[in-house]
Amino acid sequence: MATTQTSDATPNSRQIRASVLHGAKDLRIETRKLSPPGPNDLQVSIRATGLCGSDLHYYRHYRNGDIIVREPMSLGHESAGVVVDVGPEVKGFKVGDKVALEVGLPCEQCERCKEGRYNICKQMKFRSSAKAFPHAQGTLQDRINHPAAWCHKLPENVSLDLGAILEPLGVAIHASRRAQLAAGATVLVFGAGAVGLLVAAMAKISGASIVVIADIDAGRVNFAVKNKFAHRGFTVPLKRGNTIEEDLEIAKETSVDIGRIKKEGDDVVGEVDAVFECTGVPSCLQASIYATRPGGKVLLIGMGTPIQNLPISAAALREVDLVGVFRYANTYPTGIEVVSKKGPDYPDFSKLVTHRFKGLESVIEAFEMAAKTKDDNGKLVIKVVLDTEELSS
Amino acid sequence: MATTQTSDATPNSRQIRASVLHGAKDLRIETRKLSPPGPNDLQVSIRATGLCGSDLHYYRHYRNGDIIVREPMSLGHESAGVVVDVGPEVKGFKVGDKVALEVGLPCEQCERCKEGRYNICKQMKFRSSAKAFPHAQGTLQDRINHPAAWCHKLPENVSLDLGAILEPLGVAIHASRRAQLAAGATVLVFGAGAVGLLVAAMAKISGASIVVIADIDAGRVNFAVKNKFAHRGFTVPLKRGNTIEEDLEIAKETSVDIGRIKKEGDDVVGEVDAVFECTGVPSCLQASIYATRPGGKVLLIGMGTPIQNLPISAAALREVDLVGVFRYANTYPTGIEVVSKKGPDYPDFSKLVTHRFKGLESVIEAFEMAAKTKDDNGKLVIKVVLDTEELSS
Amino acid sequence: MATTQTSDATPNSRQIRASVLHGAKDLRIETRKLSPPGPNDLQVSIRATGLCGSDLHYYRHYRNGDIIVREPMSLGHESAGVVVDVGPEVKGFKVGDKVALEVGLPCEQCERCKEGRYNICKQMKFRSSAKAFPHAQGTLQDRINHPAAWCHKLPENVSLDLGAILEPLGVAIHASRRAQLAAGATVLVFGAGAVGLLVAAMAKISGASIVVIADIDAGRVNFAVKNKFAHRGFTVPLKRGNTIEEDLEIAKETSVDIGRIKKEGDDVVGEVDAVFECTGVPSCLQASIYATRPGGKVLLIGMGTPIQNLPISAAALREVDLVGVFRYANTYPTGIEVVSKKGPDYPDFSKLVTHRFKGLESVIEAFEMAAKTKDDNGKLVIKVVLDTEELSS
Amino acid sequence: MATTQTSDATPNSRQIRASVLHGAKDLRIETRKLSPPGPNDLQVSIRATGLCGSDLHYYRHYRNGDIIVREPMSLGHESAGVVVDVGPEVKGFKVGDKVALEVGLPCEQCERCKEGRYNICKQMKFRSSAKAFPHAQGTLQDRINHPAAWCHKLPENVSLDLGAILEPLGVAIHASRRAQLAAGATVLVFGAGAVGLLVAAMAKISGASIVVIADIDAGRVNFAVKNKFAHRGFTVPLKRGNTIEEDLEIAKETSVDIGRIKKEGDDVVGEVDAVFECTGVPSCLQASIYATRPGGKVLLIGMGTPIQNLPISAAALREVDLVGVFRYANTYPTGIEVVSKKGPDYPDFSKLVTHRFKGLESVIEAFEMAAKTKDDNGKLVIKVVLDTEELSS
Repeated sequence: MATTQTSDATPNSRQIRASVLHGAKDLRIETRKLSPPGPNDLQVSIRATGLCGSDLHYYRHYRNGDIIVREPMSLGHESAGVVVDVGPEVKGFKVGDKVALEVGLPCEQCERCKEGRYNICKQMKFRSSAKAFPHAQGTLQDRINHPAAWCHKLPENVSLDLGAILEPLGVAIHASRRAQLAAGATVLVFGAGAVGLLVAAMAKISGASIVVIADIDAGRVNFAVKNKFAHRGFTVPLKRGNTIEEDLEIAKETSVDIGRIKKEGDDVVGEVDAVFECTGVPSCLQASIYATRPGGKVLLIGMGTPIQNLPISAAALREVDLVGVFRYANTYPTGIEVVSKKGPDYPDFSKLVTHRFKGLESVIEAFEMAAKTKDDNGKLVIKVVLDTEELSS
Repeated sequence: MATTQTSDATPNSRQIRASVLHGAKDLRIETRKLSPPGPNDLQVSIRATGLCGSDLHYYRHYRNGDIIVREPMSLGHESAGVVVDVGPEVKGFKVGDKVALEVGLPCEQCERCKEGRYNICKQMKFRSSAKAFPHAQGTLQDRINHPAAWCHKLPENVSLDLGAILEPLGVAIHASRRAQLAAGATVLVFGAGAVGLLVAAMAKISGASIVVIADIDAGRVNFAVKNKFAHRGFTVPLKRGNTIEEDLEIAKETSVDIGRIKKEGDDVVGEVDAVFECTGVPSCLQASIYATRPGGKVLLIGMGTPIQNLPISAAALREVDLVGVFRYANTYPTGIEVVSKKGPDYPDFSKLVTHRFKGLESVIEAFEMAAKTKDDNGKLVIKVVLDTEELSS
Repeated sequence: MATTQTSDATPNSRQIRASVLHGAKDLRIETRKLSPPGPNDLQVSIRATGLCGSDLHYYRHYRNGDIIVREPMSLGHESAGVVVDVGPEVKGFKVGDKVALEVGLPCEQCERCKEGRYNICKQMKFRSSAKAFPHAQGTLQDRINHPAAWCHKLPENVSLDLGAILEPLGVAIHASRRAQLAAGATVLVFGAGAVGLLVAAMAKISGASIVVIADIDAGRVNFAVKNKFAHRGFTVPLKRGNTIEEDLEIAKETSVDIGRIKKEGDDVVGEVDAVFECTGVPSCLQASIYATRPGGKVLLIGMGTPIQNLPISAAALREVDLVGVFRYANTYPTGIEVVSKKGPDYPDFSKLVTHRFKGLESVIEAFEMAAKTKDDNGKLVIKVVLDTEELSS
Repeated sequence: MATTQTSDATPNSRQIRASVLHGAKDLRIETRKLSPPGPNDLQVSIRATGLCGSDLHYYRHYRNGDIIVREPMSLGHESAGVVVDVGPEVKGFKVGDKVALEVGLPCEQCERCKEGRYNICKQMKFRSSAKAFPHAQGTLQDRINHPAAWCHKLPENVSLDLGAILEPLGVAIHASRRAQLAAGATVLVFGAGAVGLLVAAMAKISGASIVVIADIDAGRVNFAVKNKFAHRGFTVPLKRGNTIEEDLEIAKETSVDIGRIKKEGDDVVGEVDAVFECTGVPSCLQASIYATRPGGKVLLIGMGTPIQNLPISAAALREVDLVGVFRYANTYPTGIEVVSKKGPDYPDFSKLVTHRFKGLESVIEAFEMAAKTKDDNGKLVIKVVLDTEELSS
């Protein structure tokens, strides 16, 4: 049966086009062979891939922090598509199903995997990351084979773009779980990029009474509040100081700003129970520590300066815990529930995709857009999605 | 200063009227002496008291389950009022402040108190409960003295009626905390009385994707959905069987009903992560166990048959935990945040108070109303509040 | 290489003898074919299998509670052995390694599996359980193929008998995790069979200050204390009453007994923080609820009467939670650490194996012994192990 | 009655001698007035006070980090004594009882107090700390009045010296709770001073399989292992580098050392689940982060450099959480259980008190000894206790 389905799919189903990075800014479209799906795999036609900051780093520098690309690699890991072939052992999927891809394949055998924290599996193979070798190829290809166990069927009412958003939303869901947020909490989010917005939205959905978002860019802050991702926002100088002393000074000023904002409203605002740090900028992490109430949590989400000067006593003496958030585990089913809902006060997730490009050929254009804060018309760039529907030959 | 305030308060401030229960249905209005507030106390003029099921039991039977009243006792414990006098050591309150009263005074010295679970303190003195002796007198009095530490200031925009609602809302907040509800959860609530409605609302606010409420009364179910306390509802025969076999049969049928409801919608509904049992009826608890997914929780909230025949293996073998919920601890600040908010999709807490009576003299009328499911006009009775503004002499 | 290893293993490596249950007490030794191990499998020569209560139920009744055997089935699931062949993709194992077998194979794809609670996976295939169909065959066979991911290498100093004990020890480890036992806790264990002893031992190792074990049999209680599984013990009438009233009466008397024991010592004993119920007898579960302090936990471990009459208000009103314990997840690495240690005050796990039989032919003799409380010499029967070293042909 | 007891106590019961710090190294013995105990207080004759690092800082510098002494202050907060007078409302204590003092008095009204985390109460009044003003006077006085609710009765078999040890043991108990240590864990402790030793002991008692302790001083490491506080130990250069680069280099070398030690034994050692950092030295905290397995925890216990350069990405990307430990809450009952036990493999807590001085006059001598690592005979100085039995006049 699977065989029949394959023949229906596309005339040249064993050949695909892939966007492949060969060096800094050297992104080429190549032809690759694709075998039929393995017994437990789906073959998925990729239709939407969101471009992430890590993709952008690889694109510009052929590396991401310490991780250097060692062989040509396709980028892309925030992805959704349509099933075009079904491996013979797979149950519960059929050709034509819309799916979101969970692109990290853990070993499933280590203690971390078995206890459900597969995101920190040491053997993780994550598409478009150059950490493991050979690299797991990203999704900026016409089609890929992927284990059905890591494909998540999308309901009719969830678009493929929202399917792609499930990946960064996974980070936000994972962060809110690690924060053990309770209803009524007061939450501060540093950074109003895609992840910060999603983190704020999840805090709001989880019952936080006051979610405040902070960014250097007033436009992003307005976007967050207008589209119901956060209750309030304010702009802060998220800049990096030249010296440790400057960093700490900026951090303290930011804390004061937060205090001022809190007093503006007519309602009494409690202490900040949790800060979600989504910038990776030292002054923000420092401010996060100062701003959190005794016994609260700082969630470390933003990737940035790997070694930072931190007021660690200000954390330890008040039992403000610094909690790491690395990717996500077991978040897709929840994510699908979350993006399936709508309402006048509900975050409008569809607004996150500010820019769409069509066709694998637009990949460079898409990356160049993703590198900007605003487009040429002055519109904010939050999330760029590449819609790579394969041309029927 | 406190003295001056007192003299302003009322001409006969040392004498109050109290509604006192002397026997089944023997509720008398008496005059009592009231000393000035102690050093750490507030004197509060009671303005709103919600009538609770336990009050009603005492009123009708002079007992509540095993607990027998041993001396005349004022009823009422869901209460809010206005500060009329302030003890000399008290900080942070002034005459005229609106406050909600947390009426249970724990010992503050035992291990449970010190670890923050003061609701299960063995020495708890809870107003209008006859468990401790001498009984702690309830709030159906003109004024009471109460420790400032257990008074919660209400913001301007929160009415005294909502202040009274904070008490049953505390049970709901405590239940949702004990359930460790996560965003995206599927929740079932048995019983659409005041507590069931509040429990459903808290699950919804905490990010549960689907909150289904079940009751024998279609009117209550409609009320719940219309006023945004739950996403969906259905009516079930919450009746008690004549034999164990009948009970289990009812329970299984109810589980099937739940399954049917779930399939009606156009979206796929997951398994039930948590059931909040708010009826105390054996067939409901049995159905709760059957309905919960492996690894889920059943929250025991409803008080009813003290010894029940339970399908305990169906719980144990699937690690469905039975989690007790007794009153609340540390819920008032969260409750104030919760009732302060409004929105088109937000539960309308003000709708809970379906009937209000004015004046301490109306107490019997109020109790008779609270005993009904519907009033003479066919309107649902959910929560009856007695507004006991003291007459200036 | 794997092939070479196979040829070394045994001359007739593709043929094995299996002990197979065909009906109540109809246990036959048959010859089966065994393929070489799959790519990710080990072939293990079974050397030690502990007989469990569920095996005994199947042996005697061809069913276990509601679960009826539907096809001939080998019993045995507490097992260890020696690797005799290694699948080509397997890493980290070699011929000759001693391994303990984790015999339950979960689906690894459902939400429960992915979140690390694979013990409650609905698709679980557990050797020697007739729940899934076709049944997963048990370990009372010469050799089996088993996924390497579910084989746990034993250190030199851990015997194969202790390797077999890791299975019931897994239940104990899982129970102590679910209990969230803290150092200094007071613990009560009902039932001093193999699981009760292991549960007591784990509570002691986890820092419980006082672990009291209760059983109807004074010999078992003495065994527990003498071999350092518990600090103290006492005998109780764990009998089942004829009526609900008798059950509750027995339960209350038992609670009084516990109180008496506690006062005998010269040290002050606190309240019972957790009760581990390992008997499945209603009066014990009832006593467990009464004996637990407010806010404590009752762990449901013993399998017995599936529908029980329980004083559920006595649990709910004091927030005594009833927590299910079904098998185990992620316990083998911890178990290996636990049985690797020795010391004058440390539980002597090797003492648990009171009776050993050699050779697959002894299987009926072994089951008949496992059915007894004491052997003909009056020695306690705790755990019967069948050592089934394969005869070289 | 209380009055009678008082008159029995001492001839001049309203006058006491106190050791009072007036400036750096300016410690004077003065006479103070002491009122009879308040209604809920005990009057306790102080008999044993352990000298803590913070006392020593105050003694030497009249400040402790940022906290400057603003008025003459008695030192001492690790204390036990004997009840000599009982306030009229107190229940459960009598003259002659041995008690350990929990010297921090929280506000008991804020959210942190009510939720059981009173150690991080902002209004905490902690004896011998100059943070609150007026300062709460320490216990290096003949007698003090202290709320009975914060006095813990000692059993007969627990000495007053062990009663004093309960204070630093509280830190260790609190740390092991915050670590959520599970049986079988692998634990690393940096620093083998009194707190490090107690932390190691609690990890061992809580079921950690391997507790490794590290210190710069081989004598301390040997002491730890010999007296059963840890399973193993090793010496490391816990020195502070001159530059950030040096710090990180030291940290990495230390991690390598830990790896080497782990491979020395004949048993396989797993990854480090939790590191308890008890030194406050940056290179140790850095090494702690590197040494912890993904998903593990670093407990921040040692107070030291307030601003530290930390490899925060190495923590965040592996979800190694940095968890603050500030003093303790609700640990005394557990501590009493812990020090009440003895056994051949059990930590010998009495060995911690390496030096004792008698009489309030010896206070300067005691402080000078506490400042040393070894005494003039080359004996290790771990904990110096001052036994200040009051002279009968």
